[in-house]
Amino acid sequence: MADGSSRQPAASRPGGRTARVRERILDATVQLVGRHGLAGLRYDELAELAGVHKSSVYRNWPERETLVSEALLRYAAETAVLTDTGDLRRDLIEFLIDLAATLDTPTGRAVQSAALTGHENPNVARAVAAVFEQRLEVMRTRVEVAVERGELPPVDAYFFGELLCSPVHLYVSRGVRPFTRAVAEQVTDVVLAGIRETSRRE
Amino acid sequence: MADGSSRQPAASRPGGRTARVRERILDATVQLVGRHGLAGLRYDELAELAGVHKSSVYRNWPERETLVSEALLRYAAETAVLTDTGDLRRDLIEFLIDLAATLDTPTGRAVQSAALTGHENPNVARAVAAVFEQRLEVMRTRVEVAVERGELPPVDAYFFGELLCSPVHLYVSRGVRPFTRAVAEQVTDVVLAGIRETSRRE
Repeated sequence: MADGSSRQPAASRPGGRTARVRERILDATVQLVGRHGLAGLRYDELAELAGVHKSSVYRNWPERETLVSEALLRYAAETAVLTDTGDLRRDLIEFLIDLAATLDTPTGRAVQSAALTGHENPNVARAVAAVFEQRLEVMRTRVEVAVERGELPPVDAYFFGELLCSPVHLYVSRGVRPFTRAVAEQVTDVVLAGIRETSRRE
Repeated sequence: MADGSSRQPAASRPGGRTARVRERILDATVQLVGRHGLAGLRYDELAELAGVHKSSVYRNWPERETLVSEALLRYAAETAVLTDTGDLRRDLIEFLIDLAATLDTPTGRAVQSAALTGHENPNVARAVAAVFEQRLEVMRTRVEVAVERGELPPVDAYFFGELLCSPVHLYVSRGVRPFTRAVAEQVTDVVLAGIRETSRRE
């Protein structure tokens, strides 16, 4: 995930031909997951979409599971970024808005759907778990900094992250109301106030 | 939904033979939705499972969509009940625990999965929307009573319900940590404290 935070288009990324081929394959994998779900990836279709030889795919990723995990992790790291501007509230609001946009794509829906039905397929379950684990790590790091700075009382990062992020999932999957900036602000404000208030009582 | 809150087993419900046949068909529909998803229901398989003639199914529900909606609404009303004991916190905690148990069933997973992928099929989308609308109505009624009693500041019932219920969905679908009573209490306490605290600031 060394270049995971880069937002440059694939063509201008450094690393020469091999790196560009790998990136084209990873991008195409994300697209195909959105079309057919995590379990439906076929290497011949993938090679065609990426414009590479099928042997390039097999050489780089002999295991389909490794390819899907790596592609989704790269996609997740690039799409929902939790920065540290020193203003926790602002950073969380931006993160939620990014997350809503990511979830509301074919790939986002495929990952969420796989999370629900993936229990039957351990490979799919592992890829989904890796994406969630990465998101949790990002949240844990930002929460630890906030606690050190006194912006937040000590809080379990898993609980805090789920409380904050799950309304985004539900708004997007229901499609009844849009997850707007106003909703992101309201969720963040209620969760931050609630966490501070309940920790004061303990 | 006249008998929606009844918890009696189907066999002992009043209403005679026709009512019992209808209930057996509705129960079997819920089971089959859990097995094959909302779009996979077949009347011949359904009749066999319910132990009725296929003609009984067609006579009662000429439209598959109506049958699926009615079965899911009955199931939703029976499974996650939001009672009014006069103690809002307690009622919400019990509701969240019930909801977690309902979502963590084959039928619960099928409905959630359909919510994500149902956008392509308007009939499926309508059935899912009906279940969500019913849950929202239950929440709206309880919230209105709580606001009248001064247990809660005026709050948008949709926002309040989503904030409270979405962690249940995420905990259950991820399967990383169980949604325990302790988590239900923590979610309820943070959300109630946050709603009260942010409304005070306005």
